[in-house]
Amino acid sequence: MEDHIRFDSSRHVLDLLDQRLLPAREKRFLCSTTADVITAIKTMVVRGAPAIGVSAAFGCALAVREAAAENRQDWQAGLDRKLGQLAASRPTAVNLAWAVDRQRSVWESAQDADPERLYNLFVSKALEMQAEDIASCKAIGKASLELVHQGDCILTHCNAGALATAGYGTALAVVRAAWEAGLRISVIADETRPLLQGARLTCWELHKEGIPVTLACDNSCACLMSKGKVQLVVVGADRIAANGDTANKIGTMGVALLARHFSIPFYVAAPVSTIDPALKNGAGIPIEQRSASEVTSVLDRQIAPRGVPAYNFAFDVTPAEYITAIITDQGLLRPPFDRAIARLDFNR
Amino acid sequence: MEDHIRFDSSRHVLDLLDQRLLPAREKRFLCSTTADVITAIKTMVVRGAPAIGVSAAFGCALAVREAAAENRQDWQAGLDRKLGQLAASRPTAVNLAWAVDRQRSVWESAQDADPERLYNLFVSKALEMQAEDIASCKAIGKASLELVHQGDCILTHCNAGALATAGYGTALAVVRAAWEAGLRISVIADETRPLLQGARLTCWELHKEGIPVTLACDNSCACLMSKGKVQLVVVGADRIAANGDTANKIGTMGVALLARHFSIPFYVAAPVSTIDPALKNGAGIPIEQRSASEVTSVLDRQIAPRGVPAYNFAFDVTPAEYITAIITDQGLLRPPFDRAIARLDFNR
Repeated sequence: MEDHIRFDSSRHVLDLLDQRLLPAREKRFLCSTTADVITAIKTMVVRGAPAIGVSAAFGCALAVREAAAENRQDWQAGLDRKLGQLAASRPTAVNLAWAVDRQRSVWESAQDADPERLYNLFVSKALEMQAEDIASCKAIGKASLELVHQGDCILTHCNAGALATAGYGTALAVVRAAWEAGLRISVIADETRPLLQGARLTCWELHKEGIPVTLACDNSCACLMSKGKVQLVVVGADRIAANGDTANKIGTMGVALLARHFSIPFYVAAPVSTIDPALKNGAGIPIEQRSASEVTSVLDRQIAPRGVPAYNFAFDVTPAEYITAIITDQGLLRPPFDRAIARLDFNR
Repeated sequence: MEDHIRFDSSRHVLDLLDQRLLPAREKRFLCSTTADVITAIKTMVVRGAPAIGVSAAFGCALAVREAAAENRQDWQAGLDRKLGQLAASRPTAVNLAWAVDRQRSVWESAQDADPERLYNLFVSKALEMQAEDIASCKAIGKASLELVHQGDCILTHCNAGALATAGYGTALAVVRAAWEAGLRISVIADETRPLLQGARLTCWELHKEGIPVTLACDNSCACLMSKGKVQLVVVGADRIAANGDTANKIGTMGVALLARHFSIPFYVAAPVSTIDPALKNGAGIPIEQRSASEVTSVLDRQIAPRGVPAYNFAFDVTPAEYITAIITDQGLLRPPFDRAIARLDFNR
C-alpha cells in the first residue's frame, strides 16, 4: 500500500489513489498541475497529515515547471505564489506547511538554480520525504511494541493508516508492528462520520492484510468500552502543540474522554513532524470547518430534510491530560509532554 | 403529526407512516395481519418505545380476527400464541410487553366475549392507549418547563419525538413545550447511526414545525459541548430500571458521560409506562443486537469492504448516576431514583 502516492517524473504527474472512492473502486487521480494537487488535497482524494505533506512536496515540483511556463522572466514570483497556495490548501495539519517550508529551504540553498534544476531538486526532496515518512512510521511501530499485548483489541478512530501517510501508517503502524511481531490482536474501527474514513479506509487496509477488524458506529464507543471490548485506543494526529494538546479527526476528543472514564489507555501515534513546537497549546490550532453537505448526506445520498443546517468541524482538540503517551519516531513521550517535547530533535 | 399511527376499524387495517423512508418520502405502510404488524415493528417502519406499544395494541385486535378466522373452535389458543409473538417482536422496549399485557387484562376481564366483541374491546383499549400516550407526552412537556431557559440549545440523540410516540414526543415534548411557551430555544440533533433517526426523523419533525434544528454527527458531541454550544441534553428511553438505569438508543451512554464531564445537565424524558419496576437495575435489561449490515451500509449503500463484521448493539444502558432528572408524566424524578420510582403510581 506504499504506492498510493506515486510520482512520475518523466511525465511530470503526481498519481494518487483516489481515497474518496474506496472501498468500492480503486481508481487513480492524476495531478499534472498545482491546481490539481490543491484540488486533491481540498477534496480529500488524499488525506491524512503525513500523506498531505508528501503530496504537497511533489506539488511544489509541479509548481516550478508551471511558473516557468507561465512567465520565464519572473518565474520566481509565480513559484512563490503557488507554494503559498499549496501550503494554504487545508489549515489544520501542520505537515502540509512543514513540507512546503522544506521545499522553500531547498530553494533558498539553490537560489541560482534554473527551473529545470530546481524541479529536479524538489522531486528529489519529495522522494526523500516520502522515504523518510515510511521510515518514521516503522519507527513508530517499533516504539509502540511495549504497549500492546497478546489478545488486545485496539480501537482506532478515522484512518491513520498507510493511506494517511506515505505507507505503513501511524496509528495503524502500532497495529501492524504488533501483528508482525506475532501478537494475536484485533481492531475496532470507528466508522468516522461524516466521510467514513474508518469504515472505508481503515477496514479496507486491515481486511486486505488479514488483520481482524470489526466496524463500529462512532456512537457505540462507550458501550463497547463498558463491555470490556477495548484494551487500548490509538489514534493519529494532525497537529500536536508544545504541551501535547492534539488536533485530530472530529470525534477523537470524545473517545479520549470516554477512555479515561473506563481507565483504558489512550495513545496518539505521530511522527515528530506533526508536532508544532511554536504553538503553546491546542487553543492556537486552526480548526477547519467543512461544508454542511458532508453531514446532511452520506455517499451523495441526502439523509436530512433539505434546508436543515449542520455542524461540520473537521477536527477537535484532545487536551494533553487525556493522552497516556505520544508514540513518535523518536520514541515514546510520557507526561509531562511539554518537557518531553522540548527534548525532541526537530532538525533531524 | 399525531396521525402517523392510524387504525381503520371498518377495514381492519393498521395504517402506519413508514419511518424508514423519511425524510425522502411520506408513504404509508398498511398492516392487515398480525404478521404485518410484527414486520413493521421488527424492520422499524414504526419505532420508539411508546409508538411500538400503541401499534402492538392495535396488532392485538387484528390477532383476534385472524385467530377466529383460522380456527373458530379454538381461537383462544391461536390468539394467545399471536399475542406472545407480538410481545416478542423486539426485546428492549418495555412498552411493547406492557401494551400486550394490558390487552391480556382486557381479555381476562371479558373471558366470555366472542371474537367480534373482543376485537371491539381491543380496538377501544388501543385507542384509549393512543390518547393516553399523547396526554402523557403533554404532561412530560409541562413537567419539563422549569428545566429550560430562554436561548438554551438542547442536544438530543435519536428520535424521541412525535414519531416515537402516539404524538408530541418525549424528549421532543420538552422542546415543543418550551417552544410553545415562547422560549427562543434551538436543538442539536445527533444523526444517530446506524439508522439515522436523528438526521431523518428529528430534523424532519422539528424543521416542519419551524423549530431551529442543527444536525451533527454523533462523534461531534464532545467538541460541541466543549465549545459551549449545548445547555442541556434530553433523550428518550426504551426501558428504565427501578434504580433509574436507562436503556436508550446506542450512543446515549456516551452522551451522558460527556455531559457529566462538561457539567451539562442530562435528562431522560419518558412516560411512567417506560419504567420497569420489576428490574432492579440496568444489568437485567435485554439489549437487542441487530444485523451488521445496518452498520456496514447507509441507506442501502455499502460503506465498508464486503466481509468486514460490525457491532450493532441497538441500545446501551446509561447508569442512573449520570442522569440529572427523569421527566415523566407524573412529574420530575430526582435522585435517588430508586426512592422516587418507588413512589410512582404504576396502576393509573
